[in-house]
Amino acid sequence: MNLAGIDLARKTEKHEYKKIISKLELKAGALQRKAREKGIPVIIVFEGWGAAGKGTQINNLMLALDPRGFNVYLTKAANEEEYMRPFLWRFWLRVPAAGRMAIFDRSWYRRVLNDRVEKLISKREYQEAYIEINDFERQLSDEGTVIIKFFLHISKKEQKKRFKSLLANPSTAWKVSKNDRKQHRHYATYVGVIEDMLKKTSLATAPWTVVEANDNRFASVKILETLIATLSKALSARTRPRRSATATSLSGKIPPLLDKTDLSVSMEREEYEDSLKKCQARLHELEHEIYVKRIPVLIVYEGWDAAGKGGNIRRLVQGLDPRGYEVVPVAAPNDVEKAHHYLWRFWQKVPKAGHITIFDRSWYGRVMVERIEGFCTETEWKRAFGEIREFERELADNGMVVVKFWLDIDKDEQLRRFKQRQTIAYKTWKITDEDWRNREKWGLYKRAVEEMIYRTSTKDAPWTIVEANCKLYARIKTMETVIRAVEKKL
Amino acid sequence: MNLAGIDLARKTEKHEYKKIISKLELKAGALQRKAREKGIPVIIVFEGWGAAGKGTQINNLMLALDPRGFNVYLTKAANEEEYMRPFLWRFWLRVPAAGRMAIFDRSWYRRVLNDRVEKLISKREYQEAYIEINDFERQLSDEGTVIIKFFLHISKKEQKKRFKSLLANPSTAWKVSKNDRKQHRHYATYVGVIEDMLKKTSLATAPWTVVEANDNRFASVKILETLIATLSKALSARTRPRRSATATSLSGKIPPLLDKTDLSVSMEREEYEDSLKKCQARLHELEHEIYVKRIPVLIVYEGWDAAGKGGNIRRLVQGLDPRGYEVVPVAAPNDVEKAHHYLWRFWQKVPKAGHITIFDRSWYGRVMVERIEGFCTETEWKRAFGEIREFERELADNGMVVVKFWLDIDKDEQLRRFKQRQTIAYKTWKITDEDWRNREKWGLYKRAVEEMIYRTSTKDAPWTIVEANCKLYARIKTMETVIRAVEKKL
Repeated sequence: MNLAGIDLARKTEKHEYKKIISKLELKAGALQRKAREKGIPVIIVFEGWGAAGKGTQINNLMLALDPRGFNVYLTKAANEEEYMRPFLWRFWLRVPAAGRMAIFDRSWYRRVLNDRVEKLISKREYQEAYIEINDFERQLSDEGTVIIKFFLHISKKEQKKRFKSLLANPSTAWKVSKNDRKQHRHYATYVGVIEDMLKKTSLATAPWTVVEANDNRFASVKILETLIATLSKALSARTRPRRSATATSLSGKIPPLLDKTDLSVSMEREEYEDSLKKCQARLHELEHEIYVKRIPVLIVYEGWDAAGKGGNIRRLVQGLDPRGYEVVPVAAPNDVEKAHHYLWRFWQKVPKAGHITIFDRSWYGRVMVERIEGFCTETEWKRAFGEIREFERELADNGMVVVKFWLDIDKDEQLRRFKQRQTIAYKTWKITDEDWRNREKWGLYKRAVEEMIYRTSTKDAPWTIVEANCKLYARIKTMETVIRAVEKKL
Repeated sequence: MNLAGIDLARKTEKHEYKKIISKLELKAGALQRKAREKGIPVIIVFEGWGAAGKGTQINNLMLALDPRGFNVYLTKAANEEEYMRPFLWRFWLRVPAAGRMAIFDRSWYRRVLNDRVEKLISKREYQEAYIEINDFERQLSDEGTVIIKFFLHISKKEQKKRFKSLLANPSTAWKVSKNDRKQHRHYATYVGVIEDMLKKTSLATAPWTVVEANDNRFASVKILETLIATLSKALSARTRPRRSATATSLSGKIPPLLDKTDLSVSMEREEYEDSLKKCQARLHELEHEIYVKRIPVLIVYEGWDAAGKGGNIRRLVQGLDPRGYEVVPVAAPNDVEKAHHYLWRFWQKVPKAGHITIFDRSWYGRVMVERIEGFCTETEWKRAFGEIREFERELADNGMVVVKFWLDIDKDEQLRRFKQRQTIAYKTWKITDEDWRNREKWGLYKRAVEEMIYRTSTKDAPWTIVEANCKLYARIKTMETVIRAVEKKL
């Protein structure tokens, strides 16, 4: 895309504007309500030159919409909390729920504009950012989100004129920031960077619309018209919302990974007590080291019911300082979570720099329980393998250590533990009818687990199968695995 | 409470400890599960001297609990986002949902400890903090939250010993902060401040437990025993959770405020257009001024169905910069919101310093629709008047401008507008069966509104009744009221 080819002389005369604008506003409002009824989430991004009129345009747009249906988010430079997490974190937190609209005044594109030009990030980082941004938008649009992106374009001359007029008035002078002036001086550099961005992030599902914004009225009309056209199309294309699909065909024979696991391995109590002390002491040291070096650590626990996840996690954290770690138990999603992309609730909980987060169950529910119990469609769980790989790659790119455990026991051992739980008073709460029902589907789950491990073991986020018939052995193995992974990073 | 009277020589021997600790842990775990089943939220606060062992004790406690049922929050000095809001804001965001447990490693008591001693706040501010803290805890316990507060006490000598040992080891030396050393030097000053805190915030429903922590084992046992005793009592006392009551008896004859409103006032379009321009320009200036002076502004819109709230709000914000304000539409609470104190969702949205938040409906739903439709108990809505006054006083104490509008129309005017909505194509979505049902209860609502205005009009957060039969008049009156309120503050 070439900004030089944009005709900035385009104008809408006042009488013409008055004639059409209220009609467009009513239309936009009506479509917003329809999108709400159909449960379609909508994202509208406003990027553009300083003084291009983003504020004015957003205000105009808001006036056409029902304020009960949208939120406006202003994106400034990342604050400390945000800076300590992957750069998309704060945007994931703000993706709209089903039927809601999120309007972004600046957005994740800061990363490939300001952060890039001001050299706040390396070349590798902004190149990765392109991939991550495209993944992000594609994941959302795959689940039915409509994404509309506006770039408000004005000429260097027009920008100069506007800055001058803003600076002339003391009540608006503050709007022209130091960065705005810098941008103006380096207008030509920015042109190249913007064209690069437009080219690399105009997906079919989330294309850019460059808005000729030398004339405010022309821009307002174009924005409303684009919104109306995009929403109309999305509404007519979709009979059922949130079920759009990226064609997914999985290939490859799944190796029977769990058959190869030797569950007879075990450990004597004496050796265990000794190793436990050493491991806990080492983990305590490492907790401090990662804190100092600002390394985030993410640990995922998955496993059969009664495989001993809870007890394993307890030993892992026993020697740690609670200020440095968090255990996130994952149950069925609540209704707010259900109204968002399924990765949304996990994004909220990604560890920040220097901290450890342990997930007791995780996003892998999508390709296990949700797959087998039919809580999601086939398209959705098939798509999830790729989404999860992308998600974990983003975390690893952010410098995160990612460790994933599958706690493996055999069917007999599970039965023994279930029965034991039923007879020991303080353990009966741990066993439910659902556990027995899941047990009947052992074979289905086994195949799903093997496919999961096969498809989502990556260099940066490998699975470790933990032989857990002997709990003592399993505890030491997980601790040693975490220790090795963190040491390797350090 | 006198710290000198605490016997810090108390100890639990190792063999004794081993004998009782696992029993206590099992008991605590069982009670946690019961509290979850009954939907009782639990707050556990850990305060104490530096190196008193808060981390260790929290870790021990966590090991007794099901990690799926609690969150641990570490409270440091407020970050920028937090600093720009009332000091309880960040704690309101973290109050546990029904059946959940929140463990605070330091808490809102920083305000009357560190902030006070380090003179980060004025005397008036920490004195107000005591009132606000007591209100906060009472409001939560009134809705059924169990609050357990531990102060971990060690002697100056013991603290010295522990600091020395921490400093001797490079992997723990970082734990002794500059503030810790300062606290140690001013141990005696802190004693007075702590005693003041213990005395002023030991409510019957949320008493302090001072824990003799020179001996870690003794402390662990006392903490678990206190937790067990408190939870047992709470569980047996309560047949139905979340319905505990502070005895509320309201008195006073409610004046028929709405009868006195002269709804015949009106404004011609010409005068309106002229005033509108002037008001919007002035609001735009003020938006900038409050931004510079860091003043938060909160505006509440309540009113009859079809009173014109939406159109009124649109004119109010039309000239504003969207980065400076937010409109928060309030509908029925979702299930996450329902699982919290009813003020919880509103606390999330209080404006930050320098910003304007406009609530389209608000917490007053409690004493209107929830009261009349029976969505809450009589005890609850009666208690709400006081809670709301406290809430708004906290906001005003924080320097916030609070403006509240009741848009008043008469029954005939409402009927006219309902009918109009049914006939104009782009307005039909605005009228629902519920609107007609509410209309039938006009008399009940009228009395509730009059009581609401009578009981919650305060100096710092007054109601303005806006005569809204003429929309033009109403729009100008609300804008002028906001302008005056902000100007007064400036």
